[in-house]
Amino acid sequence: MKTRFILINTSHAGNVGGTARAMKTMGFDDLVLVAPRWANVLRREETIQRASGALDVLNNARIVETLDEALDGVAHLCATAMTPRDFGPPTRSPRAHFAELLGVPDLLLKKEHIESVEQGLKPDSIAFLFGSERFGMQNEDVYRCHVALSIPSDPQFGSLNLAAAVQLIAYDWREALGGFAVQSATAEPQLADAAAVAGMLRHWEEALTDIGFLDPASPKKLMPRLNQLFNRAQLSPEEIHILRGVAKAMSQKALRAAGKTSA
Amino acid sequence: MKTRFILINTSHAGNVGGTARAMKTMGFDDLVLVAPRWANVLRREETIQRASGALDVLNNARIVETLDEALDGVAHLCATAMTPRDFGPPTRSPRAHFAELLGVPDLLLKKEHIESVEQGLKPDSIAFLFGSERFGMQNEDVYRCHVALSIPSDPQFGSLNLAAAVQLIAYDWREALGGFAVQSATAEPQLADAAAVAGMLRHWEEALTDIGFLDPASPKKLMPRLNQLFNRAQLSPEEIHILRGVAKAMSQKALRAAGKTSA
Repeated sequence: MKTRFILINTSHAGNVGGTARAMKTMGFDDLVLVAPRWANVLRREETIQRASGALDVLNNARIVETLDEALDGVAHLCATAMTPRDFGPPTRSPRAHFAELLGVPDLLLKKEHIESVEQGLKPDSIAFLFGSERFGMQNEDVYRCHVALSIPSDPQFGSLNLAAAVQLIAYDWREALGGFAVQSATAEPQLADAAAVAGMLRHWEEALTDIGFLDPASPKKLMPRLNQLFNRAQLSPEEIHILRGVAKAMSQKALRAAGKTSA
Repeated sequence: MKTRFILINTSHAGNVGGTARAMKTMGFDDLVLVAPRWANVLRREETIQRASGALDVLNNARIVETLDEALDGVAHLCATAMTPRDFGPPTRSPRAHFAELLGVPDLLLKKEHIESVEQGLKPDSIAFLFGSERFGMQNEDVYRCHVALSIPSDPQFGSLNLAAAVQLIAYDWREALGGFAVQSATAEPQLADAAAVAGMLRHWEEALTDIGFLDPASPKKLMPRLNQLFNRAQLSPEEIHILRGVAKAMSQKALRAAGKTSA
């Protein structure tokens, strides 16, 4: 779905760069700045540094004078706002609103959010509006929006950094759209079968006896406890191999010690 | 649940400040820095500026020399890592892992993540480990962890800012723990009842006839269309009042115009 991020009256160049980076990590690239403090903000050093490679987002970004000029081609407007107002669009958490908007089965919703699932048309385009660092969004701008998104945060300290708020919204929206896959950093682990675990445990039982830790006449629950431990650990074949190696070394050392003692 | 954030070899003071702020917005306050680049990083100007009021988190933060010293009192260790390794803990998305860890009903999980729900004990404490900005986490540190969390991001550009990654993990973890409530910025809207809407529509029907927009001899579907529009708009009693005022003004203007014409 067409997705635009709109920063209104942004004053810190670092936040513009951070916004570009946050958008790009979540696969978005349509950025519009409305009357930023610095006319050259897209080319300032701090912007480029904080963008950390998201230069295409900066290069494609538009700077406009009024919010009107930023709204072409987007049907659904989401304000981000914390401060109470006399009236305005309903306040929703991002996850609950996105699930409603996309008609996602309500599995994702907490119960208290389910009540107002809308039946209407789904928009094919969306914009997220962010106000200035110091003053947030102006009432006149909030009034134009369909919803006010509020990121659930500590009531004692709800002040998110602007780029951090963009990052959270971009993440929740991307996840609602289906999300990116997580690439496993390692090969999928293979589980050793129960027979291999049992064989290893017999090997350990002998070795623990050899080194005098296990008394076969009074084994207590030692081996079942180790069995439970290794079950929880979900051993791989390589780990079975390592543990058998340890058992073998224990027995060999015990044998040599016995030889020395007897020598 | 006891929750700690551990930054290892962090080099940018701004990220330490941003981390403190991100943690505090989500209600967390236990920060440990392992061998940061600047020994005085907790008191640097950029740190304090980016912390933006989360000074208690900075004041309570500990600086230690080794990861070992950062791990007292935490049972479950989550690495955050992107780079492939030869082996290591399983890679999971934060949301899927947190739901598993807390035994949240699998409603929150995408299907492909459900497979490996664990049956074990639930930890009562957790730490999130973040590596340096340039090099990420070292293998030796990842090996100590129970899981490697990977934030789902664009495979073409997965490079999140450190403080942004902390913000996302803190948010997902707080939401998994039950989340903060969203405070409505406006009073709960009251819906006008259907009788009030019908009365307003009759008022409009007269007014639209008075101004010559509606031809009672050929009304077509105008009034049902307006009825549908106003249903979707979910009118409040105040809005019914406004719309009746508009109808009244239309009729009065039409009446005066008729008077002038006849004069």
